[in-house]
Amino acid sequence: MKTYIEANKERFFEELFSLLRIPSISSSPENRPDMVRCAERLVELLKEAGADEAAVYQTDGHPVVFGRKTVSPDAPTVLVYGHYDVQPVDPVELWHSAPFEPEIRDGAIYARGANDDKGQLFMHIKAFEFMVREAGLRHNVKFILEGEEEIGSPSLAKWAKEHKDMLAADIILVSDTTMISESVPSINCGMRGLSYVEVKVTGPDKDLHSGHYGGAVANPINVLCDMISSLIDKDGHITVKGFYDDVVELSAEDRAKLARAPFDLEEYKSFLNIKEVKGEKGYTTLERTGIRPCLDVNGIWGGFTGEGSKTVLPSEAHAKISMRLVPNQDSETITRLFCEHFRAIAPDYVKVEVKPCHGGDGFLIPISSEAYQAASKAMTEVYGIEPVPSRGGGSIPILADLQRILGIDPLLMGFGLERDTIHSPNESYLLKQLFAGMESIALFYRYY
Amino acid sequence: MKTYIEANKERFFEELFSLLRIPSISSSPENRPDMVRCAERLVELLKEAGADEAAVYQTDGHPVVFGRKTVSPDAPTVLVYGHYDVQPVDPVELWHSAPFEPEIRDGAIYARGANDDKGQLFMHIKAFEFMVREAGLRHNVKFILEGEEEIGSPSLAKWAKEHKDMLAADIILVSDTTMISESVPSINCGMRGLSYVEVKVTGPDKDLHSGHYGGAVANPINVLCDMISSLIDKDGHITVKGFYDDVVELSAEDRAKLARAPFDLEEYKSFLNIKEVKGEKGYTTLERTGIRPCLDVNGIWGGFTGEGSKTVLPSEAHAKISMRLVPNQDSETITRLFCEHFRAIAPDYVKVEVKPCHGGDGFLIPISSEAYQAASKAMTEVYGIEPVPSRGGGSIPILADLQRILGIDPLLMGFGLERDTIHSPNESYLLKQLFAGMESIALFYRYY
Repeated sequence: MKTYIEANKERFFEELFSLLRIPSISSSPENRPDMVRCAERLVELLKEAGADEAAVYQTDGHPVVFGRKTVSPDAPTVLVYGHYDVQPVDPVELWHSAPFEPEIRDGAIYARGANDDKGQLFMHIKAFEFMVREAGLRHNVKFILEGEEEIGSPSLAKWAKEHKDMLAADIILVSDTTMISESVPSINCGMRGLSYVEVKVTGPDKDLHSGHYGGAVANPINVLCDMISSLIDKDGHITVKGFYDDVVELSAEDRAKLARAPFDLEEYKSFLNIKEVKGEKGYTTLERTGIRPCLDVNGIWGGFTGEGSKTVLPSEAHAKISMRLVPNQDSETITRLFCEHFRAIAPDYVKVEVKPCHGGDGFLIPISSEAYQAASKAMTEVYGIEPVPSRGGGSIPILADLQRILGIDPLLMGFGLERDTIHSPNESYLLKQLFAGMESIALFYRYY
Repeated sequence: MKTYIEANKERFFEELFSLLRIPSISSSPENRPDMVRCAERLVELLKEAGADEAAVYQTDGHPVVFGRKTVSPDAPTVLVYGHYDVQPVDPVELWHSAPFEPEIRDGAIYARGANDDKGQLFMHIKAFEFMVREAGLRHNVKFILEGEEEIGSPSLAKWAKEHKDMLAADIILVSDTTMISESVPSINCGMRGLSYVEVKVTGPDKDLHSGHYGGAVANPINVLCDMISSLIDKDGHITVKGFYDDVVELSAEDRAKLARAPFDLEEYKSFLNIKEVKGEKGYTTLERTGIRPCLDVNGIWGGFTGEGSKTVLPSEAHAKISMRLVPNQDSETITRLFCEHFRAIAPDYVKVEVKPCHGGDGFLIPISSEAYQAASKAMTEVYGIEPVPSRGGGSIPILADLQRILGIDPLLMGFGLERDTIHSPNESYLLKQLFAGMESIALFYRYY
């Protein structure tokens, strides 16, 4: 594959850039036409790469791209999952180059989606192309590329149910996660689930002059801060009633295995430019992001936020709050528990609304599986070192759904790195990883 | 004055509307030219009303309008203070008519500044005009109309010091406050001071994916909520060290006097559409806004606040926080104490910045003074009921400064009502109050 990459590099860039230039922000209604454009471009790329068929499928939301090449009815089948939608780009002023005008700087591609997930799904298309054209593909390969991952995949589960037979496969292969570090390859064998809600606290039914009412009328921002503050206790435990009931506690042995992953706390802190980490008492940083649930405020707003100093006692305060879940927490149950809890702790002097946004369950995949072993062998060959089994902190809720609906395990060969700052300004993807990913995937087809 | 109002009503509306149409938002740099236009329009109105001289004076910030009519060097001198700047208009979508296109609906003028303070200062210009033209003015009258009240009057104190002789007077007359209710006239004999700060909490130096880092890295929004929550304890006391050191505790007798002001808690709650009030333990609602200090978050923002559900662990969180102060709290001291406290409670895992914005001291004026008695007599005649001495919760910090610099007491004859929702969408001013104010001011000139 190395030689093939060298010979086709410029074309690869052109093709990937043609995807990156499309602002396929799934959460933004005005980008709807871009979603369609991006899906159509993927169909072209799949066909050019060697798919027998590829088409855009309508769903209740953004379209799904499905493509496949059938080698033989008896051959093992690989179902590649990826998503072509991207996160919003704000704060756009912090980008050093325009988010949808990809450019290569210092050995990396800079653009929204460069890694998550256009860059990573592109590796699969090119590894597939190489297998078809140069290496004698032995597998049936199917692609399912969705446009709603960043908004919680509201339509894909239903669509997958309706197309269950078409999607039949032996393994779901996914590159949408990160490796532990540039020098420490890893394969993700578990992901956290997600429960995401939006809350609104209303005090008086109009904005008030803080001089006239301040001190006598509850300020919804102060109340929201009190309520949020009460959600996590001083030991870092989430106080939502029943929250930990279904959390699987790992054995000392399993924790010891995970602790084998190399991790340098000082390097971690220095990368983030923080003096101290913070998390649940009794757990290491890797455990806190891997095997423990957490609660974060993803956004907060209320009152006067412009320049100057308006003395308002606002009517409303808002926050977006999400919880990362671990096996066996059920996303719907946790969302319900949160809503109940948040309403229960609301004081008399405010009204509270809680709106569930999206969610999904976490999952685990066995290290002993054939697919994991093939991936491990492939990455060992490319990186010269055996990949570490890791637990990812992020969530790809749809994978747990697909696993349940199709009865197929997902295998997460992710090639992203922390430095890529996905979801943030200046998202990027190292060319080194792009190419190592292509090689690893091609080798996976050899060993699986 | 009643007859004069009746005869000139339409002209009055035209003149007042010409002021209201100018978007003189002092906190907004792009409205600078409007500030100048508004000042110039006031000069015209003062001259037309009978001022011997009126002019725009440059300051370090927005201009001051000064005008006067001298009757005799021996006559008592009234210095009228008002401000022509207004608050921002957001959220503009909640306005039922455009904020700078005044209109009369249901017996009230709707516009930003209809009450605060263009409407109220206009009453003074028209009462003055009436005295000059029809009632034989016996006082020297001076007007000082500033353009920076809503941003804390950063330039006026310095300008007043430089023009101390020109501003010499016996009383500062101000209409920039509210009456207790439509049927209960009141005269404000004390105002709270203000200390306003902006805070910023920084966690990691970039926005992070909450799935990868959530649970292991302090989220600055959660930390800001914790910090804000800790500023007020469960009894409603502010926890900033030294905050209450200089607060004057009122005697039981003084508290009894204030308690004479009619106040209906149920009506108050129903006006605000709240189930319960909230404030410092051991004090009534009127005491909480009149004689006790308080702390309010006026604005908060951080993370993703758009539509959808971005799973970001943001780098920064911000808030605007203000404290209302009572005699003898010193605004600068309190701002310093707050900054020290906020930095001191910042945990290791974040960086904190605190920026003082603006502030000013509170003040008290004696009920026994000649000016208070004249105002009381005037309002008794207009309203048919003796006005109640009240303590205002709001702040006009510059008045404490002018009192100190010029050695003159301010008298606050305010005609606003709670229903006017100043600083909020749909600010309005009842025509009834506009005219009753003019009459009261004209009678003040008779009895003073």
